[in-house]
Amino acid sequence: MGKDAFGLAAKDNSGGLSPFPFSRRETGEKDVRFKVLFCGICHSDLHMIKNDWGVSTYPLVPGHEIVGVVTEVGTKVTKFKTGEKVGVGCLVGSCRSCDSCNEGLENYCSKSIQTYGFKYYDDTITYGGYSDSMVCDEDFVIRMPENLPLDAAAPLLCAGITVYSPMKYHGLDKPGMHIGVVGLGGLGHVAVKFAKAMGTKVTVISTSESKRDEAINKLGADAFLVSREPKQIKDALGTMDGIINTVSAAHSLVPLLGMLKKKGKLVMVGAPEKPLELPVMPLIFERKMVMGSMIGGIKETQAMIDMAAKHNITADIELISADYVNTAMERLAKADVRYRFVIDVANTLKPSP
Amino acid sequence: MGKDAFGLAAKDNSGGLSPFPFSRRETGEKDVRFKVLFCGICHSDLHMIKNDWGVSTYPLVPGHEIVGVVTEVGTKVTKFKTGEKVGVGCLVGSCRSCDSCNEGLENYCSKSIQTYGFKYYDDTITYGGYSDSMVCDEDFVIRMPENLPLDAAAPLLCAGITVYSPMKYHGLDKPGMHIGVVGLGGLGHVAVKFAKAMGTKVTVISTSESKRDEAINKLGADAFLVSREPKQIKDALGTMDGIINTVSAAHSLVPLLGMLKKKGKLVMVGAPEKPLELPVMPLIFERKMVMGSMIGGIKETQAMIDMAAKHNITADIELISADYVNTAMERLAKADVRYRFVIDVANTLKPSP
Repeated sequence: MGKDAFGLAAKDNSGGLSPFPFSRRETGEKDVRFKVLFCGICHSDLHMIKNDWGVSTYPLVPGHEIVGVVTEVGTKVTKFKTGEKVGVGCLVGSCRSCDSCNEGLENYCSKSIQTYGFKYYDDTITYGGYSDSMVCDEDFVIRMPENLPLDAAAPLLCAGITVYSPMKYHGLDKPGMHIGVVGLGGLGHVAVKFAKAMGTKVTVISTSESKRDEAINKLGADAFLVSREPKQIKDALGTMDGIINTVSAAHSLVPLLGMLKKKGKLVMVGAPEKPLELPVMPLIFERKMVMGSMIGGIKETQAMIDMAAKHNITADIELISADYVNTAMERLAKADVRYRFVIDVANTLKPSP
Repeated sequence: MGKDAFGLAAKDNSGGLSPFPFSRRETGEKDVRFKVLFCGICHSDLHMIKNDWGVSTYPLVPGHEIVGVVTEVGTKVTKFKTGEKVGVGCLVGSCRSCDSCNEGLENYCSKSIQTYGFKYYDDTITYGGYSDSMVCDEDFVIRMPENLPLDAAAPLLCAGITVYSPMKYHGLDKPGMHIGVVGLGGLGHVAVKFAKAMGTKVTVISTSESKRDEAINKLGADAFLVSREPKQIKDALGTMDGIINTVSAAHSLVPLLGMLKKKGKLVMVGAPEKPLELPVMPLIFERKMVMGSMIGGIKETQAMIDMAAKHNITADIELISADYVNTAMERLAKADVRYRFVIDVANTLKPSP
């Protein structure tokens, strides 16, 4: 049963990806089948390939920033037609009945099914977008607007929604606000673009002076400060309404909390493995808050993509061929990419002749 | 100039209080002068007496849970009359022009003047309620409703507003919600009463089984769990909308974050001196938040007192005479009080004959 598919898979935790023929289910009545055109490489793909989080099963076909063109739709599909451009992010299923699902927050559903490495309803394991085709329930498919270049838009399906969702949820999207973005990587550079499009003043907070020019002149940030420079931090104390913190390395929250205004919000979207030190006094004395956020629901992902289309927001990408993916992973581990690798799946992923 | 007053003061950081004759300013045109009837002993009084926070100046007359009866009002006072029952909490002044003041949140004004140990506008040092009289700008005076017993109501002016304010601000006051209260001391036992009055289900989280009976049968909590018992924690995982954490000793946030529902809020009102370990994953995976809160504004303090009057909420107190205050401080240091000492000022604080 099923239809032939071809992808790149990790076969074990050694870190390498290799060709992997497999099959995808037939197009169910609510399914959208599409040819994958591009797939972004998220840092979590690297963690999953290496089983850094202890939850990986092999073979593992990564990829949850997937865009393509519809090739077939099920008999009960109402939202999509053959030939349309679509995307799939981190989720392909959820329970549809819990409080989170009822609020359109499938990302917080305890029974949500991730795009790869999870058991689907038919007991098969989900395979991600490092592959030539994809099948997904239409309720988890995002419509890609015509004016967005699909390669550079692909990373928005994970990196974009991850920063967009907390800005909206926590009211950090008001024109005139001052937003800090910590870390200028895959998430951070997109956060700058969305925050600017929302009309806020944006300050990039980085460990290194080296990204100042890009942050300001290329990404449009209003200011840039180096978190290791006490003078620069001091000048920013008490100035920010919110901070989107994309850093997953261990770091001090003290300067970040200091840069918040009263009632300011520090949103963690990078995921440090070990606990961070939390100074409680700044929270108490100035009613500050620390919160986390994880991707977003399907409805808000569509809203994010629509906003991106309206404001011409895409990720800054390095488009690579499928046979470069292992090299890309090595570079990604060193943060040597500005700012997202995207695999040119349709043009370069082919079974060996 | 000024009028004679008499109080108890710390003269140095040795921890003892002794008789202290001093003078209070004449009643200014916006001032309310009142005879102090009762004053609660807050744990922060003990810290201030000992200069634990490095900000104390001596002589220091503590006390910011003060109630009394008006003896004189200034020519421009409009809200109070001689003979009325009034209270003063932690604040006696603020800038009146910053964002916080404009929002009625004088407690977050950077220029707020605390009830004792702070420099007032006339360059005198403020003296607190361990004294026979008090003078305060009417805008910082709280009206005490007739039906509240003043001795047991005094602690509400600090302990009460400290727990009430974040419950209101963070929407943890909705009937049917499930609220956890960590630590059953001066703050915690009042938090239980307010949370119950708001119509929520209340679970007390304590390190010791010894308070179970009181929590449930005396304070009206719905449930009680011991934070060192894994089974009890496990049963409570994911069940609470919010937690009011009154503990200032070092402790793990992991079980508390675990007990929150998705989007749950952990409010810190106890102030640990050292940073706590913050596990970030629970914040991210379930959109949880950690926030702090410090006392409250004048308007919300009045609202809190009015709610207390409506629901007959008071603190559980041990009324002491003024000459017992040093013993009370020793017992307070050992948490040997259920739950608040209140000094019977008017009846027992007298200059030696």
